[in-house]
Amino acid sequence: MNLPSSVRIREVGPRDGLQAERAVLDTTTKVRFVDLLSAAGLPQINVVSFVHPRAVPQMADAERVLAGIARRPGIRYDASVPNLIGARRAVAAGADELSVFVAASETSNRKNVGLAITASLAAVPAIVATAAAAAVPVIGCISTAFGCPYEGAVPEAQVCALADAFVAAGCRSLMLADTTGVGNPRQVACMVTTMRARHPDHPLWLHLHDTRGAGLANVLAALDAGATHFDAAVAGLGGCPFIAGARGNIVTEDLVHLLHDLGIATGIDLDALLDAARFIAGAVGHPVDSRLLRAGKRTDLIPE
Amino acid sequence: MNLPSSVRIREVGPRDGLQAERAVLDTTTKVRFVDLLSAAGLPQINVVSFVHPRAVPQMADAERVLAGIARRPGIRYDASVPNLIGARRAVAAGADELSVFVAASETSNRKNVGLAITASLAAVPAIVATAAAAAVPVIGCISTAFGCPYEGAVPEAQVCALADAFVAAGCRSLMLADTTGVGNPRQVACMVTTMRARHPDHPLWLHLHDTRGAGLANVLAALDAGATHFDAAVAGLGGCPFIAGARGNIVTEDLVHLLHDLGIATGIDLDALLDAARFIAGAVGHPVDSRLLRAGKRTDLIPE
Repeated sequence: MNLPSSVRIREVGPRDGLQAERAVLDTTTKVRFVDLLSAAGLPQINVVSFVHPRAVPQMADAERVLAGIARRPGIRYDASVPNLIGARRAVAAGADELSVFVAASETSNRKNVGLAITASLAAVPAIVATAAAAAVPVIGCISTAFGCPYEGAVPEAQVCALADAFVAAGCRSLMLADTTGVGNPRQVACMVTTMRARHPDHPLWLHLHDTRGAGLANVLAALDAGATHFDAAVAGLGGCPFIAGARGNIVTEDLVHLLHDLGIATGIDLDALLDAARFIAGAVGHPVDSRLLRAGKRTDLIPE
Repeated sequence: MNLPSSVRIREVGPRDGLQAERAVLDTTTKVRFVDLLSAAGLPQINVVSFVHPRAVPQMADAERVLAGIARRPGIRYDASVPNLIGARRAVAAGADELSVFVAASETSNRKNVGLAITASLAAVPAIVATAAAAAVPVIGCISTAFGCPYEGAVPEAQVCALADAFVAAGCRSLMLADTTGVGNPRQVACMVTTMRARHPDHPLWLHLHDTRGAGLANVLAALDAGATHFDAAVAGLGGCPFIAGARGNIVTEDLVHLLHDLGIATGIDLDALLDAARFIAGAVGHPVDSRLLRAGKRTDLIPE
């Protein structure tokens, strides 16, 4: 295996995770959650989404959350935006980076935002320009990159075309998202290899879900293929919009435990991360999928 | 990645899984469970352990379970045995293969069976002879092979010495067990490479637990290093004897789903396997850790 010496993790629990929760948490709890993540040394935190409050009531207080958190130097606090209105709100609220999403399949994109892929892509340059005016970089995210719940397999060429369009529009990094958790290690490794060769100057994020248990196996394959940027959510928050009861993102604390055991640096304090995971697991008030919260660290059992 | 075209899976739910359950299931339920596993085409099933009923009440009906199951041609029904008495019972009951365990660390072995490693090893030749008289092969299993909860790291030389002793005693295959789930992909790959080079004519089983979420990542690393034989338990049955509440073996249905997605044949009917998982999850009556039982197969969401 050809593994990197360090990896960058973006915590998506506050946005992708909480967005999947039915009960709306209060602003104070969200701010406390982000502050605990900051204390754990997460280099990047996906704090909020600037979507319409009717679409996602959980994110109605996005401005107040971003205003309420205690920012630590060196940590990037980013926001997801579905459109130009969201981008303007995000920049005004002081987001350090924006992420925009377009699905890799027409049907997914239409069901998600009611637009054709070309229409979604057409909006990206203005979003990038709005962000650039405030010196804010943009991540171009390709959802359903590993398979579409409506159309089935997604041709690699389609994913490449989207990545090219994001780069042409001025996005500074790219993301491949597997929201339905259908990717397998071979496919993930292939896609990472293709993308790294095609856009070597654009950092490539992977947004993997652990829907069917292969999340960390996909991470291992991605690492081996050259990936160094990963999304994850503490306590495994998040879900699958198409499968009631299915679990969500790969678990940040399980990922960090694995990476540290592999000798890969993350800059994250695992004990502090577990505090954040415990806090949000208590706040959402339902069983979560963190193995580490249940079993503890390896070194709790086996001293080094 | 260098992956094999097929893999052999041994289902350990009936033995390792149920052994971790406090409530003793009735013989009929156990027999039905094994029959469902047979129907799913598992090539090998670890049906029972011939331990003293006072030590493990769940296994008190081992003879009746082995007598009650409907054996299918081509499936190997094996039994775990802690000593010569157990081996005699297992052979008399018609087990197709035996597995004997010795821990890789002195403290673990003493805590587990009250014997020094040398004393445990001294019993193996007689067990192998008893089995051989009935043409029954024996698997030599090395527990705590990836770390000991009392002594910490286990030197590779110690694991190699145990493997050599098992081979010298006539064991026909070997197993490395990570019951506490402390192994990481790099370590697993190293150990597989070492063992395959050292005993190339002895099939090497891996018994991995998913205690901290790295179970299937460890499988991927092991496959890449040349492993082709894996233990697993449907519904993720089993636990960690040292950590209350920790989850158990890698989940058979999640493993099979991953392998099939990777194009690796198992000979297992995944739908029938899910029936067996659902049945035993209902019988044990507590939440289980199967992702697939919750999320369904990839092809349920994305038709091929």
